[in-house]
Formats: sequence, C-alpha cells, structure tokens
Amino acid sequence: MTFRNTFTWVLSALAILPLYATANIDITEAPSRPKNMIIMVGDGMGPAYTSAYRYFQNNPDTEEIEQTVFDRLLVGMASTYPAKESGYVTDSAASATALATGFKSYNGAISVDTNKRPLTTIMQMAKSRGMSTGVAVTSQVNHATPAAFLVHNESRRNYEAIATDMLQSDADVILGGGQKYFSEALLGQFKTKGYQHIDDLAQLESIAKPKVIGLFAEVQLPWVINDVDANTLSRLTQKSLELLSQNDKGFVLLVEGSLIDWAGHNNDIATAMAEMQSFANAMEVVEQYVRQHPDTLLVATADHNTGGLSIGANGEYAWDSELLKGISASPSNISATAIASDEWQTGVSKSLGFELSASELQQLSNARMQGDEALQTALKKLIDVRSNTGWTTSGHTGGDVQVFAVGPAADLFKGNQDNTQIAEKMMTLLPKKD
Amino acid sequence: MTFRNTFTWVLSALAILPLYATANIDITEAPSRPKNMIIMVGDGMGPAYTSAYRYFQNNPDTEEIEQTVFDRLLVGMASTYPAKESGYVTDSAASATALATGFKSYNGAISVDTNKRPLTTIMQMAKSRGMSTGVAVTSQVNHATPAAFLVHNESRRNYEAIATDMLQSDADVILGGGQKYFSEALLGQFKTKGYQHIDDLAQLESIAKPKVIGLFAEVQLPWVINDVDANTLSRLTQKSLELLSQNDKGFVLLVEGSLIDWAGHNNDIATAMAEMQSFANAMEVVEQYVRQHPDTLLVATADHNTGGLSIGANGEYAWDSELLKGISASPSNISATAIASDEWQTGVSKSLGFELSASELQQLSNARMQGDEALQTALKKLIDVRSNTGWTTSGHTGGDVQVFAVGPAADLFKGNQDNTQIAEKMMTLLPKKD
Ligand SMILES: [Zn+2]
Ligand SMILES: [Zn+2]
Repeated sequence: MTFRNTFTWVLSALAILPLYATANIDITEAPSRPKNMIIMVGDGMGPAYTSAYRYFQNNPDTEEIEQTVFDRLLVGMASTYPAKESGYVTDSAASATALATGFKSYNGAISVDTNKRPLTTIMQMAKSRGMSTGVAVTSQVNHATPAAFLVHNESRRNYEAIATDMLQSDADVILGGGQKYFSEALLGQFKTKGYQHIDDLAQLESIAKPKVIGLFAEVQLPWVINDVDANTLSRLTQKSLELLSQNDKGFVLLVEGSLIDWAGHNNDIATAMAEMQSFANAMEVVEQYVRQHPDTLLVATADHNTGGLSIGANGEYAWDSELLKGISASPSNISATAIASDEWQTGVSKSLGFELSASELQQLSNARMQGDEALQTALKKLIDVRSNTGWTTSGHTGGDVQVFAVGPAADLFKGNQDNTQIAEKMMTLLPKKD
Repeated sequence: MTFRNTFTWVLSALAILPLYATANIDITEAPSRPKNMIIMVGDGMGPAYTSAYRYFQNNPDTEEIEQTVFDRLLVGMASTYPAKESGYVTDSAASATALATGFKSYNGAISVDTNKRPLTTIMQMAKSRGMSTGVAVTSQVNHATPAAFLVHNESRRNYEAIATDMLQSDADVILGGGQKYFSEALLGQFKTKGYQHIDDLAQLESIAKPKVIGLFAEVQLPWVINDVDANTLSRLTQKSLELLSQNDKGFVLLVEGSLIDWAGHNNDIATAMAEMQSFANAMEVVEQYVRQHPDTLLVATADHNTGGLSIGANGEYAWDSELLKGISASPSNISATAIASDEWQTGVSKSLGFELSASELQQLSNARMQGDEALQTALKKLIDVRSNTGWTTSGHTGGDVQVFAVGPAADLFKGNQDNTQIAEKMMTLLPKKD
C-alpha cells in the first residue's frame, strides 16, 4: 500500500503548511489569473463514459487499474439543465451557450437568450482584450458547440448562416470538419481577411502562424475506430496551441471531442470508446502544455450525458472491456463491408475480434438480409450483449457531468456548480480591458 | 447575476489571502484531524440519483433550481470496482468492505480478503483507540454495508452468523431493521453485555446513553413513500449522534440510506426519490451537527450505482419530476390495494396523483388480471413512461460515484479516488493509539 505512505507524507506536509504558507507561494511562478485558457468539451461525455474509458484502457496484465487523465484532473461536477422552457434535459446548443456565455437558454439556441437576443461570448470578450481565439473540433466547425463560442443564431440548424458568420468572429484558428458548408466564395472572403485555408491534414505542418481555417472532411471527421490516424484531434490541438501562443496577450481555445456524442446517439459503445481515447489523448496534450506553461488554465467538461450509457446491464454484474478493445472497425463499416461481400462471415468475425456462435451468426445473417441499417443495429446489439453494455435512449439525459481542471485558478472549479458558472468563472479570469 | 458579484468578491479575497493566511488559520478552532467521523452511504446512489433528486425537490414556482445538500458538499468522486476476480461491477458487500477496511475483495465478502481472512475495519481501529462506534441504517442491521463495518464473514448471505457476530463488535449503537435475525436468546446476550434493546421507534426517546440495539422492523424499514414518518433515518441519525458524542475520545458512525438501492433494483423511480429525500434529510442532520461541532468530519458516498437510472429516456429530452412528486404510495402498495378492491381505478389514480388515459387504464386492467407482480410492473412502467425515466438493469452498474465531505480534512477527499482510499484516508485521520 504505497498510497498510504504517500498520504501520510501529504498529511505531515499539510500539518506544517501554515508555517511556510506565505514563504512558499510565488505569485509570479503560479499566477492566480491565467494568461491562456483552454476549455475542452467531451460532447455527451457523462460520468459513465470516463469510468468506462478507465476500464477500456486498463492493462489487464498489471495488478492495478491504470489511472486516466480524467482521474488526474477531476475537480468537480456541473449541472446542465437548459432554460426553464426546455425542461431539465439540455441539447448541445443550450449547454454550449451556457459554457460560452454564462447564460441559460432554450434547446437549439446558439448564444442567444430566450428572447433570441445575442449573448456576449467568452471568445468575444477575449477578442476585445486583444487575445487570440480558436476552435479545434471533430465535428463540422459550424456544429452546435463551436458555433456557440463563435457566433449567435436563433437555431443550431442554420448551418449556412453560422458558417458565414464565423467570418465575423475573427477567430484565429478554426479547425475541424464541414467543407460542405463553406463555399468557394465564402472561403474567398476568409482569404481576403487573411486566413490561410487548408483541407488536408498533411498541410497542417506548413501552417506557421495564424489565421487558419482548416476543414478536413465534408461534414465530421472520420470515426477514430476506422481512422488510420487516431490522433487527429491531438494534432489539431497541438497546432492550435502552437499558433495561438504566438500572441503575447494570451488566448482562449475551445477543443471538442464532438463525436463521443454521435457514437452515444447511435448507442455504439465500441465507436464511443475510440472517440473517448482520442479526446483523452488531446486532453493529455493540453495537460502537458499546462505543465510546461504554468500561466495556462485547462478546464474540461461535458455538455451533457448521451445515450444513458451504463457499465453493466440486464441484471449481470460484469462489463467486458477486453472484448471492446478487440473491435477494429465501427459497426457501420463492418456492416457496409459485409453487405458488399458474399463471404462476409469471416470478415465480420475478424473485425469484431471474436468468434461468433451459431446463433449469433444466424442473427446477423437475418439482419443482413434486411439491409445495412438492420445489420448495423444487430452488430451493435451483439456487442452490447457480449460486453454487457446498457443504453436507455438515442438522445441525451439530464444527469450532472464532471469538471476537470489544471493550472492557475483550477481550484475555482471544484465541487458542484452549474454549467453557466463555468463560463462566469472563466470570464472573471480574463484580464481587465485596457 | 448575483453569483458573479459574489464570485468577484471571492476572487478578490483569494488575491489578498497570502498576506493573511498565517494569521487567519486557527488550528484549535478547525483542527486538521477530526475527533469524530461519520461515514454516510447512499446505497446504489449513483450520480444520476443526486441529479434526479435535485429536480425532484426543486420548487417550480421559483426562478432558480434549489440546491441540495449533495450540491453543497460535493468534493470528488470514487471508483468502486471490486477485486479483480469479480470484474468491474461491485456488489454492496465488496464495496462496503472497501469502505470499511481499505481493501478490495470479491463480491459477497464481508470484510474478509480474497483468501477469506478477516480485514481490520475502521470500527475495530476506533474501538482499539477507546472511541465509540455505531451504525444507523434503513435495511436490516446485518445487511451487507453495516455488516462489513462491524463483522467479518465469507458471505453476506450468512445473515444469522452476522447477527450473532455483531455481539463481538462491541458497537455502541446499532439501529435499523432485522428483528427476524435476532432471537430472544441472542438479544438476551446483548442485554447481558449491557445493551438496551428496543423494537419501537417511540422508545427511541427513552434511550439516554449507550449501548443500544434498536430493531424497528422484521427486515428492512418501511418504504418512506408509504411511511407516516418519513424522517425515521434522520431520527436514528440524530439519536446516534447524541449517544456517541458522550464519549470524550470521539466516535465513528456509519449511516446508510440502504433502500435507495432496493428501489433501484426494483426500477421504481417514485420509491427511489422518496428514499433519496430521507437520506438527504439525514445528511442535513449530520451537516448541521458538523457546523455546530467543528471537530467532526462527515464523508458521504455511494457504494455503487443501481439500475442504470437515467433522467430522460427513449429519445425524448424531458424528465417530469412534478409528476413523481404527486405519487403518494409505492407501486407495491398501490397494486396490493388495487388487487383487493373491485373499485380499484379511482384509488390507483388518486395514489398516482394524475388522471389515467383510457389506454393506460386498459394496460393496468390487463395487468391486474395477471396478479400483483404484473400490476406492480405495469405501474412502474407507466410511471417511467409518464416521467420519461430510463433503466438498464435490475442490478448494479460500474460507473464512479460521488464523494461528499465537510469538516476537518474534508479537502483530503477531493478529486478522483478509489473507494479503498476513502477508508485509508479516514483511518489515517484516527488518533494515534495510546
Ligand atoms: Zn447530442
Ligand atoms: Zn444492490
């Protein structure tokens, strides 16, 4: 029990702390106000996701359960309910509005209040202080969360208007998916404003200074479980930090693991765990940055829970994370391949990473005859039964989410808070206006 | 936004704190080691339960959502997985063993290790320091959680042996249910050892000093939703504090809201919310005690999640807590009454607190013809559909639980920890042995 030894040491240190408190605090080394702030959002990443991810990434050959970045950085939790008229269960737009502005609004609102009037965002406040801003996400860049940080709109569904309005946000870094929403004409306007435009991840290296708009997919980025490069969000995050840190006045950056939510809506645990891995990796990139730049604050949270995920289901006290690790393609990909081939059974079993029983093969075969959607559903159900994963909904649920933080003023986010308070606290940490 | 004003004030206070840090800390007033420790366990009370309870107790006539005791006292979270051989999903015995001893064991273990050897409990350590100990629970007192704090047994199912062994625990206060497990002969032994024995809540007032064994029900206490006195756990808690605080050397008390878990196993949201209310009330009793006795530490947590509860289900973004508030009896009671009467429809509707549609009445009528169990199930399903509540299992799930704390050294429990670390930290806070 090495922990107890460490703990005794910490307790001894605490006991003598009052004597040295004044002497030990070096304000210049650990400022109470951060110069830079990074907010990371795991879309849909309720508490069950971070617990599940811990067991998913656990090495079964070691005696202990390996800690995750979420374990290291947990400081509190947040309630997520939207404005009263929308009940207790939020959508991504209302909760992104809360996180970007500090105000509750209705489900669907993009940083407008319940009367559809624009609300000042933390990104606008940062800009007005001469700071740089950026977003790096795995959805289209005009999806609800990044949209609420950069523009105002009465509906998240107005994708074209949101894309156009991003021009006015003056954001220094815009990285994600969404090519189909940005016409040549619109991209021309971005270029006129000084933006470099790229549409291939390989071009990322060539970008040495802001501004940049990088759109790497028609809509969202590929599922990480199918991607040859599972570290795309980490690369986008790393590049954002490199570009934004060139501003001496500091920056505010939003990073979103957008597709955790999409996998949750699909009740697709294998795909969700791979997206969690990608988001955790990106969080580790920022954690490293904060360790090297003690003037930078990271606050991470989720906007809500998705899917009603549970670790264990149907009365059984078990969850098979090892089985999930062996799955090498998304149910959507496995299904598409299986539909296209007569010799589908070996391929499916290989992609799933386990042998199928006769009755399982029969279920899949029946579903395959009904087409792609039925086969996808059957594959997800099979994985749920084998891993003993539970879901209650194809939508969101209203439970509190976790809050993670590291860096100056990280303690402000500890304990319970409302999601609007996360924004309020971050806004209070911005420098005074000149 | 009064919060922002308060917050700015707090931030200003923080900024000047280093100047006054040494002067402001009064070790005698807020000792770093508590004299008394209370551990409260909401059995099965995963994060969705405390969020749901917030919305359940919310007053819809006010603009804001009222905070709960859980919101006030949240400091961190804890993982709950049992010993490796039992996978990732714990039962109440393994997690009570973790909380009582600081060691992981197998599901079913009552403070014995994976080789079935006894593990030292915090209650034994307290006793060996001359402190008093007690348990106050809503299940039978020999159920898994109190059992793991007071005795050692290779199986939670050995109820008789556990009851008998409680005699050796020398606990000063034993309050809860479980009359059927304590024979006259056994109770005679308790009396010989100096215990007062009571079996009626009304007798509680007459007890002015330890020791006491109070068994107020054959097995568990009545569901709070059906109980004329919904504050039984608060009364047991208050009396425990009064009796145990007579020891100058301090005490360790376990309080468990045992039946939250039982309602969760039944997937019975109305009953679960009433049990949550009862546990929250008892937590407020302890919170008050801690405010008045700054030498006392409260640590509250759950042993695991039960039922895979979700706030919202089936693709709908809603949860109707108002409907749940109107339900005045448990589905089991409503069913029993309805089965016994030909004029059942009015009674059911009155107990549920809402009008039933023709198709709902038809469903209940069909179920009633199949008997009590079918009618109970139909009633719970009806409540789930109306309130939009989701469940994934009749058992437990493996997600992390919350940790709440107030009092000296409460900060030690902040952030992420394993449930064994909760016990380790509390043990470290015990005084040195003479
Ligand atoms: Zn969503
Ligand atoms: Zn249970």
